[in-house]
Amino acid sequence: MVWVMNKNAEFVYLDYASTSPVDKEVLVAMEPWMTTEFANASSTHTMGYESRKAVDTARAVVADTLNSSSQEIIFTGGGTESVNIALFGVAREVGQGHIVTSAIEHPSVLDTCRALEKEGFELSVVMPDENGIVSVDAVSAEVREDTILVSVMYANNEVGTIQSVKEIASAVKEKNPNVLFHTDACQASGALSLDVKELGVDLLTINASKIYGPKGVGALYIKNGVKLKPLMYGGGQERGLRPGTENVAGIVGFAKALEIADRDREEESVRLIGLRDSFAARLLELTPGAELNGDALQRLPNNINVLFKGVSGEALMIHLDQAGIQASLGSACAAGVVGPSHVLLAMGRSKEEASSSVRFTLGRQTTGRDIQFVLEVFPEIISKLTTN
Amino acid sequence: MVWVMNKNAEFVYLDYASTSPVDKEVLVAMEPWMTTEFANASSTHTMGYESRKAVDTARAVVADTLNSSSQEIIFTGGGTESVNIALFGVAREVGQGHIVTSAIEHPSVLDTCRALEKEGFELSVVMPDENGIVSVDAVSAEVREDTILVSVMYANNEVGTIQSVKEIASAVKEKNPNVLFHTDACQASGALSLDVKELGVDLLTINASKIYGPKGVGALYIKNGVKLKPLMYGGGQERGLRPGTENVAGIVGFAKALEIADRDREEESVRLIGLRDSFAARLLELTPGAELNGDALQRLPNNINVLFKGVSGEALMIHLDQAGIQASLGSACAAGVVGPSHVLLAMGRSKEEASSSVRFTLGRQTTGRDIQFVLEVFPEIISKLTTN
Repeated sequence: MVWVMNKNAEFVYLDYASTSPVDKEVLVAMEPWMTTEFANASSTHTMGYESRKAVDTARAVVADTLNSSSQEIIFTGGGTESVNIALFGVAREVGQGHIVTSAIEHPSVLDTCRALEKEGFELSVVMPDENGIVSVDAVSAEVREDTILVSVMYANNEVGTIQSVKEIASAVKEKNPNVLFHTDACQASGALSLDVKELGVDLLTINASKIYGPKGVGALYIKNGVKLKPLMYGGGQERGLRPGTENVAGIVGFAKALEIADRDREEESVRLIGLRDSFAARLLELTPGAELNGDALQRLPNNINVLFKGVSGEALMIHLDQAGIQASLGSACAAGVVGPSHVLLAMGRSKEEASSSVRFTLGRQTTGRDIQFVLEVFPEIISKLTTN
Repeated sequence: MVWVMNKNAEFVYLDYASTSPVDKEVLVAMEPWMTTEFANASSTHTMGYESRKAVDTARAVVADTLNSSSQEIIFTGGGTESVNIALFGVAREVGQGHIVTSAIEHPSVLDTCRALEKEGFELSVVMPDENGIVSVDAVSAEVREDTILVSVMYANNEVGTIQSVKEIASAVKEKNPNVLFHTDACQASGALSLDVKELGVDLLTINASKIYGPKGVGALYIKNGVKLKPLMYGGGQERGLRPGTENVAGIVGFAKALEIADRDREEESVRLIGLRDSFAARLLELTPGAELNGDALQRLPNNINVLFKGVSGEALMIHLDQAGIQASLGSACAAGVVGPSHVLLAMGRSKEEASSSVRFTLGRQTTGRDIQFVLEVFPEIISKLTTN
């Protein structure tokens, strides 16, 4: 779908891994909870009970999608917050020990692990292979007697590689049954099964803004019996783990978005894989020496990440942007300072190669026409950048 | 205004201190940032820049309302989160020392201070007078050479008392210029000036859900030069103090809500004071032995909190609720467990008195007709409860 902006410019949005628009059905579900039924879910009057019921229902929907129970789900202010609540929560509850994670995690995991290292925890960071796959053996090899926590993402946000979370969790627990296993499933939701029992995880992070829900809402699955030290204090909401007035509309929207994503998951994945593969094949054909970053098969249905050798990724982004194509250098970078991707570097790419890579992520509104348009303008752009 | 719910029941909502509906103008401002202009504010393409500009503009509006600069404002996931970022941030950055707060603070302040006490910080809790006023001298008397932080709320959420924050901050700093002063202004915004220079504070917390903005968004003013240790880690957003994808729509809505609240503040305060005073006077007349909790003058324009001697506050709430009147026992209680108010106890009320008190908070949609309706049904309810 071509996005029409206020200023009548047209955009082909290919940055769905960064964030997605709010689904119309989701927005419709949210609105009453902002206008007519707006009460505080903790208020002890009828309007308050209505809000509480809405939160409870949303929690049941999320719990059901994860094959868990309502008391195992808390709502948070987003994926980053869920990760922080999980990792700080486990580590500070235990007090000391060893933590294992992978080198291709989202900054919310990597930077939180590094902060824990400064607090005295020991940290091992597992490298992926050249395709961005974190091997079961590599993680398992790092697990020790004093390991308290392992965090490995379900699917990578930059190169789309899907990790064998089930096998990793199982191998980790076989080596040390006391280890708690967390997975960041923000990129996986909408594409992969989130069945926590099947995955065998203790903690799982998801958020709404990647699956056509509102920004500013996340959830954390906490297996029954897992104890977390709170990161924040206040009114005791969300079992004391995420205090503050519940964002009822956001929570309702998140549940609706997850429900739709889960319902359409298989059909939409097939459609996206079709678009993705024809798009990727043509991109590689059109560009001499171009290479796909990441695993070709063990990969999210919507992710293409290509190394355009000798081309400045930044320049390519700018030219694409001028043509209305919204792509990405890897992940959205908060500071606006674009360094080479830590994910591509960990996979063995050089700094130059990492800086020559561009990510295209497809989504629910992406059509064959969008892809066709990109492929029409691409040859001229790439020839300009390779001859200069 | 009488709220019409789905099931066609009618409500007189008198719980605005708990939360408010989203203003129509606010919702209109938010919607494009969820549907057509939904990009991640950290994405380096045109749609991303549009989102970034929206966040920047919102930040400028908030900064302007607070008479501060944009680099002094961060957006958060709510008031509780702002408080936690501020208090943990100051304390952990310094590492050790003494903290002063008041006994009538919101749980987000009190419980965070108690958590810091467990981390090894010393804590002094100042008692208010019988009217719920925290005196300048009482706070100043607690300030020592090793005091690092003082947090006193601007206006109380339960009894509506307005604290002399300017005078308290000034006295504290006179005694020890190194102390950082935080104020929780969540209840004050929309009623009182938020000029941080005039108030002389270093940190100030506000949120959107009390001023007809969306739930799940807050802000924290951090005076230039004040250093905070981050509570959470991730993509570096909000100067690294509140990482995670920015809730663009929520932030835009918050700024719009604050703009409207600040614009209409004086006129709306006069209107609410008129309604409040006639309502309170009649309530006290109608109920033998009833007393106003809190200061009669140094009080938020929308707050009435009455001790109905010998009456169960809970029973009164239930009867009011059956008549469609949505009042409160004090503050919204997350756990659903209603204990006697810590604020009323600190003011010297007995447990029984605290449990016999009910709060009515008026708002933008409250009309004279609403008040008249309550006053019509009130005598029968109160007589039922006093004769039983």
